[in-house]
Amino acid sequence: MWPSTKLTEIINVSLPIIQAPMSGGATTPELVAAVSNAGGLGSFGVGYMQPEDIRAAIKKTRLLTKKPFSVNLFVPEKHEALPENILAMQSILTTVTAELNIIIDIPTAPYLPSFDEQMKVIIEEKIPIVSFTFGIPDQKYLSILKRNKIIVIGTATSVHEALLWQMHGAHLIVAQGAEAGGHRGTFSHSMQDGLIGLMALIPQLVDKLSIPIIAAGGIMDARSIIAALLLGASGVQMGTAFLTSRESGIPEAYKKLLLRTKADNTILTRAFSGRYARGVNNQFIEAMQPYDSVVLDYPIQNAFTQPLRKVAAQQNNVEFLSLWAGQAAYLCKDISATDLMYELDRNVSSLLKAT
Amino acid sequence: MWPSTKLTEIINVSLPIIQAPMSGGATTPELVAAVSNAGGLGSFGVGYMQPEDIRAAIKKTRLLTKKPFSVNLFVPEKHEALPENILAMQSILTTVTAELNIIIDIPTAPYLPSFDEQMKVIIEEKIPIVSFTFGIPDQKYLSILKRNKIIVIGTATSVHEALLWQMHGAHLIVAQGAEAGGHRGTFSHSMQDGLIGLMALIPQLVDKLSIPIIAAGGIMDARSIIAALLLGASGVQMGTAFLTSRESGIPEAYKKLLLRTKADNTILTRAFSGRYARGVNNQFIEAMQPYDSVVLDYPIQNAFTQPLRKVAAQQNNVEFLSLWAGQAAYLCKDISATDLMYELDRNVSSLLKAT
Repeated sequence: MWPSTKLTEIINVSLPIIQAPMSGGATTPELVAAVSNAGGLGSFGVGYMQPEDIRAAIKKTRLLTKKPFSVNLFVPEKHEALPENILAMQSILTTVTAELNIIIDIPTAPYLPSFDEQMKVIIEEKIPIVSFTFGIPDQKYLSILKRNKIIVIGTATSVHEALLWQMHGAHLIVAQGAEAGGHRGTFSHSMQDGLIGLMALIPQLVDKLSIPIIAAGGIMDARSIIAALLLGASGVQMGTAFLTSRESGIPEAYKKLLLRTKADNTILTRAFSGRYARGVNNQFIEAMQPYDSVVLDYPIQNAFTQPLRKVAAQQNNVEFLSLWAGQAAYLCKDISATDLMYELDRNVSSLLKAT
Repeated sequence: MWPSTKLTEIINVSLPIIQAPMSGGATTPELVAAVSNAGGLGSFGVGYMQPEDIRAAIKKTRLLTKKPFSVNLFVPEKHEALPENILAMQSILTTVTAELNIIIDIPTAPYLPSFDEQMKVIIEEKIPIVSFTFGIPDQKYLSILKRNKIIVIGTATSVHEALLWQMHGAHLIVAQGAEAGGHRGTFSHSMQDGLIGLMALIPQLVDKLSIPIIAAGGIMDARSIIAALLLGASGVQMGTAFLTSRESGIPEAYKKLLLRTKADNTILTRAFSGRYARGVNNQFIEAMQPYDSVVLDYPIQNAFTQPLRKVAAQQNNVEFLSLWAGQAAYLCKDISATDLMYELDRNVSSLLKAT
């Protein structure tokens, strides 16, 4: 069962480990290339990136690796906000971020780069494997992907969502367990209904789907990799473990905080983006708690808080950064992505031998 | 690693499987004895039972097995309710249960049997292994347990709670993952902070504690048993899997519902007892949703809804029963507890051989 699985066959890699496509600058060309060069699948989280920036990142990565890597897109979703609610959020954010000494401007539409243009770049650049979060793209996009023989990975947080993806032709499913850091991928029901622990989620998906499942959430070392494979997964997707790698692009203060983090301190919040995401608690999340019911729809809230997170990153101020992390973040290591990949391979092999 | 673990050594059983101490009549003498006779550890959930009923159940079980079994107690916690809030809940429950045609009486204190008397029975009956939920008992009780050389199992939902238990002399920790059915055992922080998936929770506990860990939550078959052991657990505690066993004492309608349940339909609710618990959604939970903020403290709310649940059980009406179940309930089987134990042992052995 290690390292050959259905996953390594389908995506043609030597280790069934996908480095999670994290947005917000974490997935640099260096990180993606390092993981792919080490035999896994590096992935870009480009949901917030402009098409020309996506192209530049792809080109840069191709200078660093000849191996395949993948790109992840956010599927657009409906959003709306009344003018008075936007004004109210401006006033809340101004109060909450007073110490940052910045002016909170009202964001203007479009709140996200064009999905159509992002897709165009990915097709033109012949990215062989594309994953999606927050939903299933329109049929016209699925047809283009199929015509171009691109492997499609769907993100699901429940059996229902996974079955929807399978029906729409996904080749693989990333099963996002409740443990996962960052945004919940839930798209077809309430967030709570999609908070299923991997121990319960993976066996159900394996029993009810015909396509291979990739386990995501809380997977940090050989123990959880083997546990996921024994539950029936064909591979794992690891995010938090790569956040503190030398090649990751997150602010230094965020990296340091993860390296000294204690367990038990992640929290689900909508305050940064309007969508639930798991991260380490901080001053911004706490201060926004009383306003939970007036947080705006994603991606309007996201566009609103983006400038303040940028300032916080420049100031290395973790109290106003989105510190996405999974429930096993305490296992983060100060290590290069390359070394982490080799270590995981070695440890999985020896743990399996000892079993 | 199978079947001998630190757990089997400490509690002197042949399989590292504990049948979870479920309250509400699920854990009959027949169920507890069947599991212990098959080599696991049967357990009674007696939190809601009067001392004399506990004694009778123990005596009845001893006629059915010579093997050790354990008893679980609810640690008392502070609770209060203003008279006007009690009246408001009476009116809410009267409205919500109109179709049951019952009179909702205001419960009177004490809302639970005497913990002191329950402890007395357990000591007198020389129960060799006692587990606790909802907290850590006062030092005087811990001293009595120690003096009587009773093995103490603490329930924890986070590293913090597990460390507290270890400090207070627990021999073993049941790590309750977010996947678990029934009441959350959380006692030292917010419910959300104790909702950690087993994939993330077990490795942390194993790394940070010196006493053995028992994994609980979503464990239903050989796959999840081995996954838990590989994560570092010394054994598993399984509840939902035994709910549908022939020997379990839950109402027939509840059993049937679990046997045809789909995945994805458990929910966390305080409506039945005042404490968060995971179960299958139904009419009562839905109808109580608007009143979430006025649900009374445990165990007052529990005492309030007990009569209506009794009527619902008599009428085999699942819409007003607490249908506790974990996130992998879809794997429930129509089987005897004895056969389930043998099947698990066989399947774990062959899955391990195939790995």
